[in-house]
Amino acid sequence: MGRLIERITPFVVMDILSRARRMPGVIHMEVGEPDLPPSDRVREAYMKAVRDGRFFYTPATGLTELRERIADYYRRRYKVSVHPQRVIITPGTSGAFLVALSMFTDRDRRLLLPDPSYPCYRNLAYFLDSEPLVIPAGRETDYEITPEAVRETEGVGAVIVSSPSNPTGRLYRRETLRELITVSEQKGVHFISDEIYHGLVYEGKEETALRFSDDAVVINGFSKYFCMPGFRVGWMILPGQLVRKAEIVIQNIFIAANTPAQYAAVEAFDEGHLEGVRKTFRERRDFLYSALKGVFEIDAVPEGAFYIWADISRYTGDAAGFCRRLLEEKAVAVTPGMDFGSNETAHHIRFAYTRGLSELEEGVRRIREFLGL
Amino acid sequence: MGRLIERITPFVVMDILSRARRMPGVIHMEVGEPDLPPSDRVREAYMKAVRDGRFFYTPATGLTELRERIADYYRRRYKVSVHPQRVIITPGTSGAFLVALSMFTDRDRRLLLPDPSYPCYRNLAYFLDSEPLVIPAGRETDYEITPEAVRETEGVGAVIVSSPSNPTGRLYRRETLRELITVSEQKGVHFISDEIYHGLVYEGKEETALRFSDDAVVINGFSKYFCMPGFRVGWMILPGQLVRKAEIVIQNIFIAANTPAQYAAVEAFDEGHLEGVRKTFRERRDFLYSALKGVFEIDAVPEGAFYIWADISRYTGDAAGFCRRLLEEKAVAVTPGMDFGSNETAHHIRFAYTRGLSELEEGVRRIREFLGL
Repeated sequence: MGRLIERITPFVVMDILSRARRMPGVIHMEVGEPDLPPSDRVREAYMKAVRDGRFFYTPATGLTELRERIADYYRRRYKVSVHPQRVIITPGTSGAFLVALSMFTDRDRRLLLPDPSYPCYRNLAYFLDSEPLVIPAGRETDYEITPEAVRETEGVGAVIVSSPSNPTGRLYRRETLRELITVSEQKGVHFISDEIYHGLVYEGKEETALRFSDDAVVINGFSKYFCMPGFRVGWMILPGQLVRKAEIVIQNIFIAANTPAQYAAVEAFDEGHLEGVRKTFRERRDFLYSALKGVFEIDAVPEGAFYIWADISRYTGDAAGFCRRLLEEKAVAVTPGMDFGSNETAHHIRFAYTRGLSELEEGVRRIREFLGL
Repeated sequence: MGRLIERITPFVVMDILSRARRMPGVIHMEVGEPDLPPSDRVREAYMKAVRDGRFFYTPATGLTELRERIADYYRRRYKVSVHPQRVIITPGTSGAFLVALSMFTDRDRRLLLPDPSYPCYRNLAYFLDSEPLVIPAGRETDYEITPEAVRETEGVGAVIVSSPSNPTGRLYRRETLRELITVSEQKGVHFISDEIYHGLVYEGKEETALRFSDDAVVINGFSKYFCMPGFRVGWMILPGQLVRKAEIVIQNIFIAANTPAQYAAVEAFDEGHLEGVRKTFRERRDFLYSALKGVFEIDAVPEGAFYIWADISRYTGDAAGFCRRLLEEKAVAVTPGMDFGSNETAHHIRFAYTRGLSELEEGVRRIREFLGL
């Protein structure tokens, strides 16, 4: 590690969070985890696993039954065929990213990632002593990485795309996704599709990268749509020839994910419950987007995830200061854009709608007051 | 990563395990996880946390209550004072090793480790693209790393010592431990004390490295003595000035350990139950050591953990072949020495006593039959 690990930065949002936690009556519009519970079936399966003493290690690649259930989910939901042996269970998607990036990046094979994007991507590259290659994916490219950008870069080991995206809530167009995968494969670059916000889609329809190629690496997990963040269970779907390598890495760096939580996750694919989750977040998105679009400029129309990426430049160019003052003066917590990169992030903030409507309403009221509207 | 990750090797024992799992009636003397359950209090606390919906992320450094409980355990058990903020909860000890090694090793700062030792140590170094520096700790040095060996090496970032040790079951003498820590600190080398087998000690008394220095890094967890392997919860005690750095790394590579399992772990420090666990393993050690010492040469008298390191050179110099034939002909699974390094490992095998006495007795009977005794 040595040099690059020193460049891992704490999230600004974490400092805001810890300040917000010490204050009374804060409206939380900064939190990136769902407030809804998983289904009762999940909870009961978890209790049963604990009652039955399922406390031994699972295989490094995960519980067979869970891998099969996930493969089945791809068949039903996306109409793609995935052999269960290609499904690898990991300690959250964090674990999946770490294993995937360890296989695809190093000093000479860089990680191509969009700006703005989830801050852990670049920090994981630093952790692995690989210098990330950041390319713009903001307003100027309709919040997508362009296939041209991938075509033009050299020395890249993997490219990572998240759709719906954190922090913008944007979906990649089907054609862009297909073309990105094609270009990546032509160049021998691994395409990593972060699909953690799949399911939380309110406009259009999300498509798994596996629809376009079996060589795409898909990463997903139970922390968002499935409302099980503290379970720390994720998965990754790999091309068959990489499974053994990933297994060996996992044996050594994790052993396996938590065992009872894996048993619980087998019951997570409960369509009725999941559709209820989606509807709840869609209502919140509808409310918050319409309430904020008169207040800020929001050209990234939020189509999925639970975020809104708002341009505050009509008020200030200092998003961090804006967030700090908003918290101190009105007790509303939001995330400054700079956590997500440097592409126009100084005048953007990210809202999360991971709280109920009445809390969101009160948040909007305070923001309008803060701005003198 | 690039080059060194390619050198991560699968454990031979894993292949034996997977073959053993497909065979009926196998006696398992290869498994490195306890067969005993945790206390009922742990199970009830786990159920309660699930029932109460404790499904959110904990802070990256872990649940405050658990960190306090661990600090209290050090006060009671070892009579050392540890501030709870120095206790960092990790996804198993694997997670703790990964974070610690990422801070202390790189291409220019190598990991010094004993041979034989737990195979993940060297594989984690490879994962982090750091070339480990292996030094003998076999019969010739009474199964200890010597302070002289540490004194003589250069370019070392950290040294790791496990006591009781896997695979030998040996305890470091108090004086050696103290001197190793002193020499390491004089050289600016981080001393990592793997204390995962603490509690499982049957001769003498184990001492935490914190007794000798607050700058020592202690790693421990709930997978062995506490009988909670599938919980994937471990901890690490760091010098205060490293806590923030570790926190930032954990935020990015794990987020946190499983939440309900952390609540359960709060109840793990149940002295009555733990003493029962120790007694059970001591009885097995007593039986197995006395049953095997006439069959193999065992000069590493097993003092702790749940392993016996047996020299098979009176029969063969090919431990891997020995293990394979023993499994195929007599359905007894043991681990060949080569998993643990290259220092006399070709003629050693490791027994685990993680099964009940009657299974161990049957194992010994079959081994004697296999050897024509």
